[in-house]
Amino acid sequence: MDRRPVTLEEVARIAGVSRATVSRVVNGVATVDRELRQVVEKAISKTGYTPNRAARSLVTRRAGAIGLVLPDEGRTLHDPYFGRVVSGVLPVIRPLGVQLVLTTGDHREVVDDLRQHRLDGVILIHTHGADPLPRQLIEANLPVVLAARPVRPMSITFVDVDQAAGAALAADHLVERGCRRLATITGPLETPPGQDRLRGFQEAVTRHGLPEPVVIEGDFSRQGGAAAARRLKGLDVDGLFVASDLMATGALPVLRHTGRRVPGDIKVVGFDDSSPAVECDPPLTTVRQPVEDMAAEMARLLVQRVERPDRPVSSVVFAPTLVIRQSS
Amino acid sequence: MDRRPVTLEEVARIAGVSRATVSRVVNGVATVDRELRQVVEKAISKTGYTPNRAARSLVTRRAGAIGLVLPDEGRTLHDPYFGRVVSGVLPVIRPLGVQLVLTTGDHREVVDDLRQHRLDGVILIHTHGADPLPRQLIEANLPVVLAARPVRPMSITFVDVDQAAGAALAADHLVERGCRRLATITGPLETPPGQDRLRGFQEAVTRHGLPEPVVIEGDFSRQGGAAAARRLKGLDVDGLFVASDLMATGALPVLRHTGRRVPGDIKVVGFDDSSPAVECDPPLTTVRQPVEDMAAEMARLLVQRVERPDRPVSSVVFAPTLVIRQSS
Repeated sequence: MDRRPVTLEEVARIAGVSRATVSRVVNGVATVDRELRQVVEKAISKTGYTPNRAARSLVTRRAGAIGLVLPDEGRTLHDPYFGRVVSGVLPVIRPLGVQLVLTTGDHREVVDDLRQHRLDGVILIHTHGADPLPRQLIEANLPVVLAARPVRPMSITFVDVDQAAGAALAADHLVERGCRRLATITGPLETPPGQDRLRGFQEAVTRHGLPEPVVIEGDFSRQGGAAAARRLKGLDVDGLFVASDLMATGALPVLRHTGRRVPGDIKVVGFDDSSPAVECDPPLTTVRQPVEDMAAEMARLLVQRVERPDRPVSSVVFAPTLVIRQSS
Repeated sequence: MDRRPVTLEEVARIAGVSRATVSRVVNGVATVDRELRQVVEKAISKTGYTPNRAARSLVTRRAGAIGLVLPDEGRTLHDPYFGRVVSGVLPVIRPLGVQLVLTTGDHREVVDDLRQHRLDGVILIHTHGADPLPRQLIEANLPVVLAARPVRPMSITFVDVDQAAGAALAADHLVERGCRRLATITGPLETPPGQDRLRGFQEAVTRHGLPEPVVIEGDFSRQGGAAAARRLKGLDVDGLFVASDLMATGALPVLRHTGRRVPGDIKVVGFDDSSPAVECDPPLTTVRQPVEDMAAEMARLLVQRVERPDRPVSSVVFAPTLVIRQSS
């Protein structure tokens, strides 16, 4: 392994830039021009220069890493949502030389990682009403971005889609297609997305002057969608809003096996527009949330928070759209 | 935020252990007893002591992080395989205080991250025949573990399942169930798992004295499985080995729509025993590879390599098993 002590000056000479520019690239200053950064990185790579991250970190007190906090040890990665989050986050942070660390929802570990400068900030994916972690992080003034609005209002940065407006799109579409007896399979009702999608759907149905929809609670998993669909058996329903595509992939085979044709007997609309929506049989009409764009925004907001912790908290809410396929 | 300079001595006093033990925990020495480590970590957490990772890293020249290299920017995370890998790796490395960094297959970045001590080692998931990265890492003496055997033999640590033996289990089972006209939807044939599963299946079929199976190349994706199944239309086949469960989830609806009942008209066996296998309609008989155990072994071998780079290269091959469900 190459251990000869290449100097910063040598890298600057080969890159044809000033010593200060090399130093700025090495220290991960976000405002360096992208092309200039690439020239410097090429020179660093060519010379085998090791900027000594550790010494740098002593000066900047930065880990050069942000955490994506999973609610459990990798099992939730089965949800295609995570792939979309990762593919949104990486292109934002990699050019800044920031790493993406996968970590678990163990509270002590997350707080310790931040305190001990093993992470500069974290993106929290799933939180439920009783989860004290967001408030702990806020009170310790540690940089955090939530992937959905917090259950109770607090001074925290979050990125969300307008969940209720998305559910209303689903209701409007089902009514427009002639459905009059509506039902919904919800997400877990202790989570804000679960709550907001239900509320948005119910309000829109009422606005159309239709009776209250049948409500069956699900859990955002494929198995949960199947179990909820079994509870629809014998109910007179002609339009179904399933609050996630993954649940819909569980619900559709159950509808088929109980003799209900989709969309002939019952029309179905999902939520997310993730990969299962196109892989469903039939392909699923669904409410699209722009997860990759939302994840990129989370990464940008988190990086800003790390660089300027004194900035006022700002959050971003994206607009949903309806994608029409064969299930409705 | 707590910034008072808690000392190592203070932590040792509260934990009731020696200063040397605290130091060993802080420096991530792998041989510290697990319970002792927890006592020290609790004291660290309680006091808010920040071990100053940067200063520590200057001494140890360690990043305290290993990389999981994705072939692309997160899109492959849709494959449930990754969730299983993460859930195998995290329980091994977290007690050692090692982070798991998600990174992309950009070669220069991977090599630079290792050279610049941003990563101590990497697990490479997907490699194909033309990929020069494994050899580059070996030649630079950088710690790496492959998640499957390399295409061409080289002195590299890998963890694999006996792919050919798994495919033979599938063939034996189909023959035992009375199938005589066999076909297989393969993985991408430039990858070792794609090659080995095909070879194992073909050899077993020949061993049973049956005609050569029909071979249709797939790509380990759901869409690829569907496309391959469409090419089976009109062929007289009563037993199908699909070389991944994810491809089977694409193939089964196509078989249904072309009027073939599973298992009545055609019996189907998958490979992996990942979550789609149980979510298939019908649930899938499949060859189980113990991915979580394999991933844990990759993590252990990588940590050993980082700690003792002079160790002789050793690899581990796990045995597959057959899981019988309703599709056969």
